[in-house]
Parts: sequence; structure tokens; C-alpha cells
Amino acid sequence: MAITTKQTPGKKQGTGSGLTGPPIVTFTSDFGSGSPLVAAMKGVVLAGCPTAVLVDVSHEVPRFDAWAGAFMLFAGTRHFGGGSVHLAVVDPGVGSTRRRLIVQAGGRFYIGPDNGLFAIVIDEVGMQAVHELAPRPYTAPTFEGRDVFAPAAAALASGVPLESLGPATDPPLGLPETGPRVLWTDGFGNLVTNLKPPARKLRVHNHDIVATAKTYSDARPGEPFVYVGSMGYLEVGVREARADKLLGARPGMRVETI
Amino acid sequence: MAITTKQTPGKKQGTGSGLTGPPIVTFTSDFGSGSPLVAAMKGVVLAGCPTAVLVDVSHEVPRFDAWAGAFMLFAGTRHFGGGSVHLAVVDPGVGSTRRRLIVQAGGRFYIGPDNGLFAIVIDEVGMQAVHELAPRPYTAPTFEGRDVFAPAAAALASGVPLESLGPATDPPLGLPETGPRVLWTDGFGNLVTNLKPPARKLRVHNHDIVATAKTYSDARPGEPFVYVGSMGYLEVGVREARADKLLGARPGMRVETI
Amino acid sequence: MAITTKQTPGKKQGTGSGLTGPPIVTFTSDFGSGSPLVAAMKGVVLAGCPTAVLVDVSHEVPRFDAWAGAFMLFAGTRHFGGGSVHLAVVDPGVGSTRRRLIVQAGGRFYIGPDNGLFAIVIDEVGMQAVHELAPRPYTAPTFEGRDVFAPAAAALASGVPLESLGPATDPPLGLPETGPRVLWTDGFGNLVTNLKPPARKLRVHNHDIVATAKTYSDARPGEPFVYVGSMGYLEVGVREARADKLLGARPGMRVETI
Repeated sequence: MAITTKQTPGKKQGTGSGLTGPPIVTFTSDFGSGSPLVAAMKGVVLAGCPTAVLVDVSHEVPRFDAWAGAFMLFAGTRHFGGGSVHLAVVDPGVGSTRRRLIVQAGGRFYIGPDNGLFAIVIDEVGMQAVHELAPRPYTAPTFEGRDVFAPAAAALASGVPLESLGPATDPPLGLPETGPRVLWTDGFGNLVTNLKPPARKLRVHNHDIVATAKTYSDARPGEPFVYVGSMGYLEVGVREARADKLLGARPGMRVETI
Repeated sequence: MAITTKQTPGKKQGTGSGLTGPPIVTFTSDFGSGSPLVAAMKGVVLAGCPTAVLVDVSHEVPRFDAWAGAFMLFAGTRHFGGGSVHLAVVDPGVGSTRRRLIVQAGGRFYIGPDNGLFAIVIDEVGMQAVHELAPRPYTAPTFEGRDVFAPAAAALASGVPLESLGPATDPPLGLPETGPRVLWTDGFGNLVTNLKPPARKLRVHNHDIVATAKTYSDARPGEPFVYVGSMGYLEVGVREARADKLLGARPGMRVETI
Repeated sequence: MAITTKQTPGKKQGTGSGLTGPPIVTFTSDFGSGSPLVAAMKGVVLAGCPTAVLVDVSHEVPRFDAWAGAFMLFAGTRHFGGGSVHLAVVDPGVGSTRRRLIVQAGGRFYIGPDNGLFAIVIDEVGMQAVHELAPRPYTAPTFEGRDVFAPAAAALASGVPLESLGPATDPPLGLPETGPRVLWTDGFGNLVTNLKPPARKLRVHNHDIVATAKTYSDARPGEPFVYVGSMGYLEVGVREARADKLLGARPGMRVETI
């Protein structure tokens, strides 16, 4: 099924409050926070769109973990306004024949490989269009982030119409259906699951989590509890301690409702 | 005691040399360098102030360490000009009843929880005003950085007067009085203490440090020495080696003058 | 030998496509991603050039590793346009008498210590000029990045002519001649060498790498292979695994052609 929703050509960057401003381009990858390859992509974006405001979402997506990448992309980009551009590269299949996509979702543009990375964004905010980037000649087959996705991001940020970057195409792949699971563990060791409210009892790695709370300071120190996290998903935390360490849990681990 | 110093409404961003430029918003947290939650805050700031220049101070503040956070906030922000805005979230008490503050210090605005984070900035550059942010309705009680502090940062960066964001209030809490201690260890393993010049002999973790030097290349390789660091505090370093490893020292550890 | 090529005074920031835009300043260091000292440098740059666009190349350069730093600086900055400014601090000799340089290479400006950091950039894109920064009085002898290099970066980004920042001087030091070696390992564990195409058989840490491939998806899982990386150097990778772990290799390790 081809998505045929039209994109307004040359749309100006907009924000939630109706203001307009400089174009925004964000970056999400599994390159590692210290990799100079992120700056290589930024150099290409600024060469094509010198006024772009650049924001890093994360370069610590767990390698090859499309579920974690999809959540982190959603969490980091959901508050940016319409017309903002979000480049994502978590891509074990670089150089293979999988499609290179631009997805318009929630009024924003997402650019990256067709491997499930866009699934949570689309599920949360809806999809308006999906186009396939034409391959570019003469590029390094190992760094599509710089050679294919960054030029497309610069073009969109400069107001080039979506249609001119490639033909409308079928929707992106979803994420593998795995049931309830840990999507991501944040820097405090809290477990973000793919379950939605209301908060309820959960079993994680043979531990039954039976307490719920609205926020950390309502919980009892040392006791794991379930709460509705800031992105709208159920999370498991421990006040002033790390739930991941206490429960022996990690991204990808199965969660049961009890 | 209420701070009554008036803030000039709609003050334009200024720099040390009297130039003006785009508004600046910096970010300091203990979220971890790979966390997408930093970008979530930035999205909110750009939605409210599209021309803001965004700068990361650090997202590796040691968890729950207000002393380290206070030093890192000072070190990272002291060179920004008047009117710049500095959002800081190191906050074990998120969701609790502790106050949410805007502190004007050194002509800059600092926004964050009332837990000692602003103490070193205030001690170094003086305080002109402190206001309490009113709670905002309908927000996630676990992510005040995004839901309370980021909108306030965007407002200040846009020129909204300080007074309109909340009433003047009592000064922020200080840091717990602990005597001489290691505030922070930098990426080279140098120990930053809360002591001031002149450089003198120190005891750290049962090691007597008796050498002093002006800079690393003046010191003898392998021998710990005391010097005046780039932020004006006494530091302990070892030329081409890590003082933290050699001395078994870490942030929070007691220091004695000998 | 003094480099006498003239620099056009007050040159506006340009891009590869002939566009102009805001000035760009990038940052490369071994301070660590969580160090607030990077923001200290950025505060100084923005105070002197409020419209500068700031980009991090990396703050995870391996300590004291000029070879890795030189490669990361090249990889991160090669796509920025003419007139962009690139500050690099990887500097075991801070405070010593080694020169402080501005190198114009590939139309871009590089600022940092004279310890080999600029060698790969110059080798790849050519050098147009080299000037020596005069020491500045009243600065912390331990933080030249903030006190010497950042003000120079701000000046260049503001259009101050290169000549006015210090006299023309001899070319910078090269890197120690070490023969074929591993320059850097990226976040996926791929080994970047200082060898150039065509791809050929290599021996690394007693392992013979005999397979070659154009991209990861052409290679056989589990088998190390040689390919031409995105920066034009030979790299060793393993599809969906880490070559550094599998081969026991690290930056600085010798490589042989077989």
C-alpha cells in the first residue's frame, strides 16, 4: 500500500506554539558518544543547510537493538515541532538492499533505514507519508548516514519538498512482535517497558513487582515499584537505587503482567 | 529572607565584552551522555525559544552528588555572558516538595531544584535574585527537567521577565558542610578540591602530597603534586598519569591540609 | 621554512556548494564526554563570536594518542566548509614550550598544540598557512584550550584575519614514523589503519586477514575482512561482531601487509 498523503512543499519549520524558527536536525545512532563520525554527518548537513540547529538525541543506542533505538528516537524527538528533521542510523544491514526511507510522522520528518526504527514514533503520533530515498552514486557503502541520509536531512531542512527526494512507497517495517519487554534502561537503571497505563503488577526476571507509585519520592527506598514514566510507558524503578542491577534486568528481557 | 534585587525585564542576551547575540541555554544533568531525555528537554526549549543556542555542560554528574554537580555547573557555565540561561537537574528528590528555583547569579540565570546545586556558583559570583517556579499542572511527576525547568528556560531565553515566572523567595539551600574534600575528578584523573590558593601540602587517602607546581610539565613524572587548577581551586595531579588511580581517591573523599 | 600563502582577511564562512552561513567552530579533545571543561571553552567562543555554530567532533580521543587524535580530527572535520574553525586539544605537553598553532588546511582553520595532531589533515587536504599564536598573559597554565585556543577560535570565526593572531611560522610537527598501524577503533570495533587502498591481505596481532569485501553485508559473519572505510583508509571489520575483540587489537598496534 502506497502512502499518498501530500506533503506541503517548502514547508517552514514550525513549533507546537505556531512559532517558526531555524530548521532543526537531530541525530540518533549507535556510533558511540565519542565517535567523530557524528560530526562527519553534521558537516554534511551544515554544508547543505548552514542555518540548521543540530541536536543529538543519542549515540548510545544499544548495537543492533531496533526496539531500544525506536524508543529512544521517540523519546528524544517527540517534543520537536512540525517540520523538524530526525536522522536515525541503527543499522546492522548497512550496504544491503533494505530500503532507505523518509517517514513523515507527527508533522516531523524521520530519515533512516527500514528496519523497525520508526515503529514507535508512528504508533504514537501517526504517519502522514513515506518516501524511498534513491541510492546516490559514488559513496562509501559503509557510511550511509553521511552519504545518503545526511544530504537528505539537509535538503528537507532547507525546504526541499519530500516528493523530490524519492517516490512514495509502502509503509516501513514494524518491530518484531515479542510481547511485553524491557525497551530501554535509563541512566538511573529504571526499566522502560512497552506496556501502557494503568500501572499494574509486573514480573521481571523472576521478581514480582507489586508496588506502584506516582513518583520516586512516593516510593519506599529499596522496594521496586511500577509507575507511568515520562514518555507514557510503564517503568520499573527503585528509589535512590538501580532497578536494573537489583532485578538483574536488561533491554530485551521479557516482562509479564501478574 | 527574600531577595528583592530587581531583574531588568526583557533583558537581551549579553556577553562579557558587551556584545549581544542569540540567547544561550545550557544543560547539566546526571542523565548520562547517551540519554535521549536531554534531547526531550531541548525540544521543549526550542519549541518555546526557536533561536536559542544550546550547549551541554555535562550529563555525567555523579548520581545524587550535589557537591560534584555544583562544581561542574560552575566550571561549565562561568564563561557564559550575562542573560545566559543554565538548566541543571541533579535531583534525587524529583516529585517531592523541595522548591523549584530560578537563581540569578553573576548576571546569568540558573534553573533547577533547591538542593545545593547552585551553591558554588553563588559563592563565586554572587546572587542577584531568587524566584520560585510555580508548579505546572498536567505534567509527568518524574521528569521536571522537561515539564517544569525547560519551559522556564525557554521563557527566560525569550526575554520573559524573571518576576513573571514566580515570586521572589528565600535563598537556595547550601551544600552540606563537610570540610575539605574532593569535589570532582576530571577525565585525566586529576582531583579537584574545594580548597583555594595558595597551593600547600595536602593529605588524600593517607597519601601526603608535598610537591607543588604551576603546570603539569613542571612536575616530575609519577609524583603527585598540588597546583591551582583552571577554575581557581587546588587540584592534585600526576604528570602523564592518573592521580585518582594512584591515590585511590574519588569524589567526596576527605582532604586534609598538612 | 615559513609558509607565506596569504589568507584573505575577514573571509566569510563558506561551504562546499558555495553557500555562506553562520561561522562554525568544532571541538576535539581527550577531556571525556562528561567534562564541563568543554562547555567552558564554548562559553569563551560564544562570548567572542555569539553567532557561532558549535559542533563536537569527539572528546574521547585516547589520552596522549596523537595518531588517533589526528585521525579523529580529520574524520570529523573533513566535510565542513571553507572558513570553518576546528579547535583541537590533545596535549600531554600543556604548559610546556611547544608551539601553539593555527594551521589553514583545505580552506579550514585548525587550532591547537604542535604535537602531530594536524598531520593527517595536512596530508589529506594540503596546507595553505601556519601561524603561531602569541602566548596570552594572566591565564591558567593548565587550560590552554580555554585561555589560548578558544579566544583564537572566536576571533577567526568572527572574521579576524589569520595574520593578526600571530606570525607565520614553520610547518607543524608530523607524527612519529611508525609504519602501518591501527589508528583508531570505531564504536563497532572496526580497526581503522593508516594504509590506503587497494584492499589487500593484512596481518594484525598474529591473525592473517585474507578476505576482502565492499561492505559489511557482503562479508561472511564471523570472518574478519579488509575493506576501504568511509574515510578512505583500509579497515578491518567482522560482520555483526567486533574485530578489536576477536583479534585482540587496539589503537597503536602494528599492522603488516602479507
